[in-house]
Amino acid sequence: MPQSSSESGDGVRSVLRALDLLALFDENHRSRTARELIDATGLPKSTVVRLVSTLEQRGLLWTRGDGRLAPGAGMLRWAQLAHDAWQLPPEAVECLRRLSTESGGESSRIYVRQGVNRLCVAQHEGTQQLRHVVRIGEAMPLWAGASGHALLIGAAPEAVRGVAAAAGRGTEFEAEFAERVRRAEEQGWAVSHGEREDGVSAVAAPVTDSAGRVVAAVGLGGPTSRFTQDRVSEFLPVLVHAAEQLSKLNFIGGRS
Amino acid sequence: MPQSSSESGDGVRSVLRALDLLALFDENHRSRTARELIDATGLPKSTVVRLVSTLEQRGLLWTRGDGRLAPGAGMLRWAQLAHDAWQLPPEAVECLRRLSTESGGESSRIYVRQGVNRLCVAQHEGTQQLRHVVRIGEAMPLWAGASGHALLIGAAPEAVRGVAAAAGRGTEFEAEFAERVRRAEEQGWAVSHGEREDGVSAVAAPVTDSAGRVVAAVGLGGPTSRFTQDRVSEFLPVLVHAAEQLSKLNFIGGRS
Repeated sequence: MPQSSSESGDGVRSVLRALDLLALFDENHRSRTARELIDATGLPKSTVVRLVSTLEQRGLLWTRGDGRLAPGAGMLRWAQLAHDAWQLPPEAVECLRRLSTESGGESSRIYVRQGVNRLCVAQHEGTQQLRHVVRIGEAMPLWAGASGHALLIGAAPEAVRGVAAAAGRGTEFEAEFAERVRRAEEQGWAVSHGEREDGVSAVAAPVTDSAGRVVAAVGLGGPTSRFTQDRVSEFLPVLVHAAEQLSKLNFIGGRS
Repeated sequence: MPQSSSESGDGVRSVLRALDLLALFDENHRSRTARELIDATGLPKSTVVRLVSTLEQRGLLWTRGDGRLAPGAGMLRWAQLAHDAWQLPPEAVECLRRLSTESGGESSRIYVRQGVNRLCVAQHEGTQQLRHVVRIGEAMPLWAGASGHALLIGAAPEAVRGVAAAAGRGTEFEAEFAERVRRAEEQGWAVSHGEREDGVSAVAAPVTDSAGRVVAAVGLGGPTSRFTQDRVSEFLPVLVHAAEQLSKLNFIGGRS
């Protein structure tokens, strides 16, 4: 098959646009009209219509009886794939549960890095009435929050700079960010207060593979009011212990 | 934003190619090398590399520590969406379970139509040692199997012809297929033996929405040796009853 220009700039752009259309569906937007997709993306109607029809062809979107678009049954296949690849082994589930319990009921979770973002791949919801809950699989910036610092331990200085630059907060922030990552590496953990969301704090520690490379971060998150210096000092030993246990399990991203 | 030519032929093609790359990952191929993707698609290396890098950018693929590609954590978001949109209400789960039990332990499942294909969106696995299990969300041809006939009840004659033509088996098959759909409509159920897979039989009945349109099919599948005329006669009343119950629940494809 001859190579065409379509998978260079234009082709890639179409793929990204199609994935961005799918990303407009979430728990607050379980169905959408074509008009909403056009308004949300700013794309021409004809483009949206073509992309929607392509996604429908593969079952990733579905036109319901009432004419609204919704995630299609073809996504169930991806759900299965994601589940198989990212399901935690029972020991890791138990480890997250214990971490949450031993922290007095804060939410515990595991993040992985994806470019300049981090994604939560597993979570044990805290038992406190005021608890911090994130969405599994949603991208959050790597430059905000303790787990971002932990995920960048051992990363090349250019990579750290690239992440900080993505924040668009100027060179002072970039230097400060590099310093925080350095400190996380030195201590083996990181703490953050209100970096991504006001009133939300977190502690995180790196999870490594058998070669000692950081492949994930494990953390606790909750309201800043409960993440006092005293309580954080209590969290740290259980957190670091959990990170060590998870590193030994060596399961991140699926095997075989 | 100006309309470009990219979302016409070329853009659509790139989107389909990207989705086809993802479809190469399944329970037997939980990870792949770039070489395998090139060989499986027949696409030029540069095209595959660009598409993989685009999919990695959105977290749908992930390069593991050992260099192999695997489904990325970004898929967890789609998994959540698919789960929310397609999760059966408890009454429907119970309905499938009962159908399986009352048929003596055959597998029961719900299919929806997607173009010329059908997708299984839910399944209750039979309890027999020799049982028939399909993959959730995987596309199967609509022109083979009882659930395909049931799904086409009420469809326009051109649509039925289109599905039969997709089989590529000639005009005789097309006439025979249309006759089977007609018979399914008349009886309110369909039966098939070895149409998609040798030695596998199925019975299916249509599930309708509140306007009476067919939106899904519910069926039983198992080895032909157990789908004798006598046993099929026993299956039919419980199957038709299950289809009626599911129609009343009116849940297909998510609400709100």
